Amino acid sequence: MIQILPIKGIPEVEHGDDVAALIVGAVTGSPWDLLVGDVLVVTHKIVSKAEGRIIDAGDETAYRAAVEAEAKAIIRRRGDLVITQTRHGFICANAGVDRSNVTGNRAVLLPIDPDRSAHGIRIKVRQATGVDVPVIVSDTFGRPWRRGQTDIAIGVSGMAVMDDHKGKPDANGRIMEATEIALIDEIASAADLAMGKSTRVPVAIVRGVEWEPGSGRATDLVRPHSEDLFR
Amino acid sequence: MIQILPIKGIPEVEHGDDVAALIVGAVTGSPWDLLVGDVLVVTHKIVSKAEGRIIDAGDETAYRAAVEAEAKAIIRRRGDLVITQTRHGFICANAGVDRSNVTGNRAVLLPIDPDRSAHGIRIKVRQATGVDVPVIVSDTFGRPWRRGQTDIAIGVSGMAVMDDHKGKPDANGRIMEATEIALIDEIASAADLAMGKSTRVPVAIVRGVEWEPGSGRATDLVRPHSEDLFR
Repeated sequence: MIQILPIKGIPEVEHGDDVAALIVGAVTGSPWDLLVGDVLVVTHKIVSKAEGRIIDAGDETAYRAAVEAEAKAIIRRRGDLVITQTRHGFICANAGVDRSNVTGNRAVLLPIDPDRSAHGIRIKVRQATGVDVPVIVSDTFGRPWRRGQTDIAIGVSGMAVMDDHKGKPDANGRIMEATEIALIDEIASAADLAMGKSTRVPVAIVRGVEWEPGSGRATDLVRPHSEDLFR
Repeated sequence: MIQILPIKGIPEVEHGDDVAALIVGAVTGSPWDLLVGDVLVVTHKIVSKAEGRIIDAGDETAYRAAVEAEAKAIIRRRGDLVITQTRHGFICANAGVDRSNVTGNRAVLLPIDPDRSAHGIRIKVRQATGVDVPVIVSDTFGRPWRRGQTDIAIGVSGMAVMDDHKGKPDANGRIMEATEIALIDEIASAADLAMGKSTRVPVAIVRGVEWEPGSGRATDLVRPHSEDLFR
């Protein structure tokens, strides 16, 4: 059985806050302890806020300027919709600049290095609790051919990013072809089910998933330009 | 808390089998009852097999011919990789023709109408158990800009496909912009965490998700050609 445990009680995060300490405090106040084998999923928004990746975007012009500044490349444009590649390599709308769930006329940018952010949270959580759990930093991305958005991983520390079945025999003993599951993305999507969008649940524990230790980064999931058929 | 409960004990499915009856039997033999509010996720493979959507694909030529026959359109080609649009409208590799986890030299095609398949399972499960739960039929798709695959919904019955936050105030009272979560896709990804790829767990119960009743179809998530920037 897999469980997705929402961690409530994290206050509004501001620049300079210690996200790991806030998470540990909230977990301590929750019905659940952090256990070996758990995966901690943190929405990037509180990470970005703590890191000061927040800007004034009082009017549309300021917002648009922020999107252009954050984008490494513009992939497509149509009206107000801008599909960008970020400096991390992610292809997403508006370079990840997000105005929802931010107080005032502000907007949140993506963390400079979400893998590093995840690593920092993981180390501090381990120091505070004695439990070493992988940390995923998540964001909400659209898809080119499917309506609606899903949460994916933009940062990770402490686990293999793929569940790699290449070369393993399937249930019929046949060697499987290319089945590489983007495990950290599936975990991020699962965590979102417990978070909701208009409630203040920025962290969830995902318990019971089989994962392998690893030092991969979420940016490893970015498909290289040479393999990209849709740029 | 959200729980993802793997349903084990479903035998190898063959053409003509009653998938709903097999699921009800397996749930009865599992530690869990089906409860109001649950969502039942079924991998398309057992649905396709029961519906006879299985072909002989003993050699590469037969497999390639099946892919071409199943595709409504070829979107991109590079070497052996064929990105297709299926008759349902889905854009995916190899028109969804799948050789993994099939006995013999066979391949599984997508169901003709996965929404209808989901509906049929839902009605029969309701008749057998008295509990009306939404049913999602899932498959494993790649993504153009991210390596690895994730499970998504190709069929659904009994729930709204989107968790629509358009126009609802966010946690700060601001009216949110376009945040439409593809809820059935996130549920499919979550269910995959309990299924694994090389084990025979083709069904999972997802418990504790907030969903709205609805009569939408998974094909509603197909982005219309007119909005597609990446065809």
